[in-house]
Amino acid sequence: IHESNSFASDFVSSLSVDTQTLQKQIEELSTFSDTPAPSVTRVLYTEKDVLARGYIKNLMQLSGLTVREDAVGNIFGRWTGDEAELAPVATGAIEAINVLKRSGFKPRKSLEVIMFTSEEPTRFGISCLGSRLLAGSEAFAKSLISTVDSQNISFLEAARSAGYAKEHDDLSVVFLKKGSYSAFVELHIEQGPILEDEDTSIGVVTAIAAPASIKVDFEGNGGHAGAVLMPNRNDAGLAAAELALAIEKHVLESGSIDTVGTVGILDLHPGAINSIPSKSHIEIDTRDIDEKRRNTVIEKIHQSAITIAKNRKVRLSEFKIVNQDPPALSEKSIIEAAEAASKELNLTDKLMISRAYHDSLFMARISPMGMIFIPCYKGYSHKPEEYASGQDIANGVKVLALTLAKLSLQ
Amino acid sequence: IHESNSFASDFVSSLSVDTQTLQKQIEELSTFSDTPAPSVTRVLYTEKDVLARGYIKNLMQLSGLTVREDAVGNIFGRWTGDEAELAPVATGAIEAINVLKRSGFKPRKSLEVIMFTSEEPTRFGISCLGSRLLAGSEAFAKSLISTVDSQNISFLEAARSAGYAKEHDDLSVVFLKKGSYSAFVELHIEQGPILEDEDTSIGVVTAIAAPASIKVDFEGNGGHAGAVLMPNRNDAGLAAAELALAIEKHVLESGSIDTVGTVGILDLHPGAINSIPSKSHIEIDTRDIDEKRRNTVIEKIHQSAITIAKNRKVRLSEFKIVNQDPPALSEKSIIEAAEAASKELNLTDKLMISRAYHDSLFMARISPMGMIFIPCYKGYSHKPEEYASGQDIANGVKVLALTLAKLSLQ
Ligand SMILES: [Mn+2]
Ligand SMILES: [Mn+2]
Ligand SMILES: [Mn+2]
Ligand SMILES: [Mn+2]
Repeated sequence: IHESNSFASDFVSSLSVDTQTLQKQIEELSTFSDTPAPSVTRVLYTEKDVLARGYIKNLMQLSGLTVREDAVGNIFGRWTGDEAELAPVATGAIEAINVLKRSGFKPRKSLEVIMFTSEEPTRFGISCLGSRLLAGSEAFAKSLISTVDSQNISFLEAARSAGYAKEHDDLSVVFLKKGSYSAFVELHIEQGPILEDEDTSIGVVTAIAAPASIKVDFEGNGGHAGAVLMPNRNDAGLAAAELALAIEKHVLESGSIDTVGTVGILDLHPGAINSIPSKSHIEIDTRDIDEKRRNTVIEKIHQSAITIAKNRKVRLSEFKIVNQDPPALSEKSIIEAAEAASKELNLTDKLMISRAYHDSLFMARISPMGMIFIPCYKGYSHKPEEYASGQDIANGVKVLALTLAKLSLQ
Repeated sequence: IHESNSFASDFVSSLSVDTQTLQKQIEELSTFSDTPAPSVTRVLYTEKDVLARGYIKNLMQLSGLTVREDAVGNIFGRWTGDEAELAPVATGAIEAINVLKRSGFKPRKSLEVIMFTSEEPTRFGISCLGSRLLAGSEAFAKSLISTVDSQNISFLEAARSAGYAKEHDDLSVVFLKKGSYSAFVELHIEQGPILEDEDTSIGVVTAIAAPASIKVDFEGNGGHAGAVLMPNRNDAGLAAAELALAIEKHVLESGSIDTVGTVGILDLHPGAINSIPSKSHIEIDTRDIDEKRRNTVIEKIHQSAITIAKNRKVRLSEFKIVNQDPPALSEKSIIEAAEAASKELNLTDKLMISRAYHDSLFMARISPMGMIFIPCYKGYSHKPEEYASGQDIANGVKVLALTLAKLSLQ
């Protein structure tokens, strides 16, 4: 009855979001918090997190989904399709499922909602913990076993206190095989100002820029700011300053607007006005949607660090690439489905890059991936001022629902 | 019986330092400490400080000096000369007086030993507090009244707990008139490596470099390290890095080895790896023996800060010259007396600059001034490794004693 790539206009116009209920659910969910509104603080595997998980599982059940959880608490709610043997189409938004249920849609491929464990690095300093593990890295699964929080509580201990990881210590049971999903589509606020500035309703993400993090330490002899003459100095602080500016230069040399690099941390030791810095520590974040181009920047930064250390006679005591996740490209068929959905719903849309990263970055390792953005206030995120209007949220949910419907029938 | 500028060789050779007693006194003095050896912690106006003051006054009395104290606890011990109406020659070393007493020397101008209050900024963050006040600044005397320590104890309250500042609140009673002394000569370890490296016994100081301290704040918009593209950034951290390197450049441009400049403090806000710095704070120390040259450097630093702020579209929210003490030149007659004394004692000597500053910097405002340096281990000071050999100390005391004798007879 449905064609795979476009729907009858009466089906499209029948799609409706229950904005009032959705808003109420967002507000109810935000009350599971250890700090008063408008901030929300919900730390992984704490009592509030366990309560919020119960709330989500309940919503999934109310939507008629079949719920399962894995050993670290990723929660899956499945709407089984007519051809249940095909890999499902997955997303993160329960209301998109509700929209399709209300419209009378019947999925061919199953549709699945995933609530990922700990997208934010609240407790163990690891972002996208759940999706990272789903994507299946043995090294990561092992390292997680020995990870502890600031109270020295181990990851496994914490997980067990929330009712997870009960059976055994091997977290590789969480891994999903490549091909487990035929598509994964995430709806998100832009976390940037472009859609709001340009008054565009929908962003269709073509790539997710991935960060590399680097820690650098320089060491010199220090000394008294009065007593040590300039030719006798090897100032670790000036080495750090020079590297910070070199990073900016190398990023700009890439020639692409998509290359960024930031020195957000720069510490000097001993940190006294009359002491030449004997140690400096900087932390660098560099991102791109093109992995090779980003890695070229990293290599240039490394070369600069070596050259600066040599010229300033300081020791480059550490140059550590803490992580270097590959960027991810969206699947062409998902981009096309989202664009088509947006146009069929008479919404303005544009192709764009996600410069923050998301669970989609890791899901892309095991599944074709796409993302849909909606405008948000001034690009703010991760602070109480974060806001998206009910209208923009409704638009996003409708585009997601229609995209899922298209992908389900493909 | 004595000529004013050179002594009979039998007088010179009769000068003897009681190294053993002096070493014992240094060790006894170091036991008035709130931390265990080898560190010494004696905070202004605490019990340990009061006990150490008693110990010093006792030594002065044992040396036959007439002791007085002023309202902030500067302690003066006078050996009245044959022409008591002349301005005395002052110093800081009791053992130099003992040397002259044992030699049978009779002063023409009186000799005076001064123990200055709080050369180190231990409690109120003010270095050379005693000499700074002696040198007579109304503004400083007033500011001291409202100064509190980290426990919110006022300067006057603290002074009173140690038995000082009893009479009234006006600290200008401490001021000394210009001409109160005909000379002030300070003996000190070099706090630098030159004398030790060059195996020279005595440094005769020709000038004291004076520091200027500057605080600078830059402010930008900050933002997410992934989301804000390079052309849209105004990174306060990079502005600080650029200024740190500009300071080095301006200092080197001065063309003089005596110009130094240091960025010992550089703080970024919020200080997270994925946040573009929205604020940066740097503290600068710059010194020279030539005030005009140093002030030229300060002016260039200011211009750079303005230019960098403009180019990077950040706000220069603070450029504060915290202090800008003038450097001091030693008096020619004192330099000559010390050089002659060193030669008569068959010691190697060299003219040099004091790059750290001392009570002499402030005494120079009211008196002709000179300093004598001795070698110290690796230039270390203000840490437990600080060390000068008994032989080097004895050499310094002898040169000082002979210099005082010459100046007393002039
Ligand atoms: Mn987030
Ligand atoms: Mn996210
Ligand atoms: Mn000192
Ligand atoms: Mn000193």
